[in-house]
Amino acid sequence: MTSKIRIGFVSISDRASSGVYQDAGLPALEEWFTRALLSPWQSITRLIPDEQALIEATLIELSDHEHCCLILTTGGTGPAPRDVTPEATLAVAHKVLPGFGEQMRAVSLKYVPTAILSRQMGVIRGQSLIINLPGQPKAIKETLDGIFAAVPYCIDLIGGPYIEANPEVLTAFRPKSAQHNPK
Amino acid sequence: MTSKIRIGFVSISDRASSGVYQDAGLPALEEWFTRALLSPWQSITRLIPDEQALIEATLIELSDHEHCCLILTTGGTGPAPRDVTPEATLAVAHKVLPGFGEQMRAVSLKYVPTAILSRQMGVIRGQSLIINLPGQPKAIKETLDGIFAAVPYCIDLIGGPYIEANPEVLTAFRPKSAQHNPK
Amino acid sequence: MTSKIRIGFVSISDRASSGVYQDAGLPALEEWFTRALLSPWQSITRLIPDEQALIEATLIELSDHEHCCLILTTGGTGPAPRDVTPEATLAVAHKVLPGFGEQMRAVSLKYVPTAILSRQMGVIRGQSLIINLPGQPKAIKETLDGIFAAVPYCIDLIGGPYIEANPEVLTAFRPKSAQHNPK
Repeated sequence: MTSKIRIGFVSISDRASSGVYQDAGLPALEEWFTRALLSPWQSITRLIPDEQALIEATLIELSDHEHCCLILTTGGTGPAPRDVTPEATLAVAHKVLPGFGEQMRAVSLKYVPTAILSRQMGVIRGQSLIINLPGQPKAIKETLDGIFAAVPYCIDLIGGPYIEANPEVLTAFRPKSAQHNPK
Repeated sequence: MTSKIRIGFVSISDRASSGVYQDAGLPALEEWFTRALLSPWQSITRLIPDEQALIEATLIELSDHEHCCLILTTGGTGPAPRDVTPEATLAVAHKVLPGFGEQMRAVSLKYVPTAILSRQMGVIRGQSLIINLPGQPKAIKETLDGIFAAVPYCIDLIGGPYIEANPEVLTAFRPKSAQHNPK
Repeated sequence: MTSKIRIGFVSISDRASSGVYQDAGLPALEEWFTRALLSPWQSITRLIPDEQALIEATLIELSDHEHCCLILTTGGTGPAPRDVTPEATLAVAHKVLPGFGEQMRAVSLKYVPTAILSRQMGVIRGQSLIINLPGQPKAIKETLDGIFAAVPYCIDLIGGPYIEANPEVLTAFRPKSAQHNPK
């Protein structure tokens, strides 16, 4: 029996976490991954305010204790004073992968010129890949569509589970030597 | 009565500041903003040599004491030993917005392959957005044309004044919820 | 008599350096530069394992003692735990040129979506430009083809020798004021 792939979803918003409005980030993430993955998976979800220490503690918990190979945050990546998701992500990172931030901004720039204001990043902590996504459901989808092809191979390289994407939705790219041969 | 929007222009050049040749950066900035802005504005200008401590002190003064919501530097962003504008900018930054550097290089790359040598960045200090521009008037214009659409909304987000661009020159992008409704 | 331009090639791989397989990085670099340069040059080569301290010491030696104006590394830039070339490069850097990393990933992205996983960077140490290249010979060539136009002028700016490229292979871009006039 194969255990399910564990994926962390962290929605970061003062207003959604205090009930001022309903969180839209976690449902958007659930929906996208339900369509995109063939491998059995489960989400470990958190909804928290824009507090740097709490974001850091949550990322550490999902990485070190919940053993999520992939952690997606949504929200808190802009230039406003309360936007501290990138600071928290950097603080718990072992390695920064600058290509994720570059590519996410390049993807969003096709839709809005203000994409250059986003400070989204992708980092590695232990055996977890952590990626900051935007806050809006539409932008979450656009961003994941634009970067996910590289995610499964990244998780291979850091010692995580083999993730199979649904080829009708997207193609996970791996060099030939890294492709599993189903028997 | 609305007070004028305060914008800092800092031309950084050993030779121009010592009179070896005439500064072309400040006039280029004045000209561009005169065309681009509808809102009443005024410039606070400085012409200084490539000395890191002096650049830092100038940026701090324009941000903390002169209350410029936007500060543009020109010059000193290349790889030469005397080019220290990015170091000074980073030293006074509270937040780095990596999308500005990426986008400015991408814009300049359409004109010259050596654009990848530029270390220009955009950062936030308090309620000021600080952006490093190239030194050449032509490149100043090309760069501002390529990034300014995102600037007014960024200044909204850090608590600054509402900047209106001249729609005949460029469109300042804001999400609908952030657009002022003139009455 | 002009002395030859000194270029450092550093192939970084646990397996190639221990003889598990044959190094392909150094031959790929020799081949590319033999085609691309008109100026007389010589390579100073090293083949070392993925050990951060050793990579740092090698880069320092090639820069400070061997006086290489240009140092190319190949390998060790991915997200795997043993990939530490960027960490070593950053540790010995005096200035980071973020445009190199951005442009190298943009170039590779035309070939493979996993290009965003690369952490390649370009930095300056003293009078040396150090650039991290990918590990595969095909990707080494693609990357050099995509960035080299900016390299000779960068070396001019940090006080290095005047490098002439073979115009049948590529064009080294320099502003007119920086072009040598052969007499």
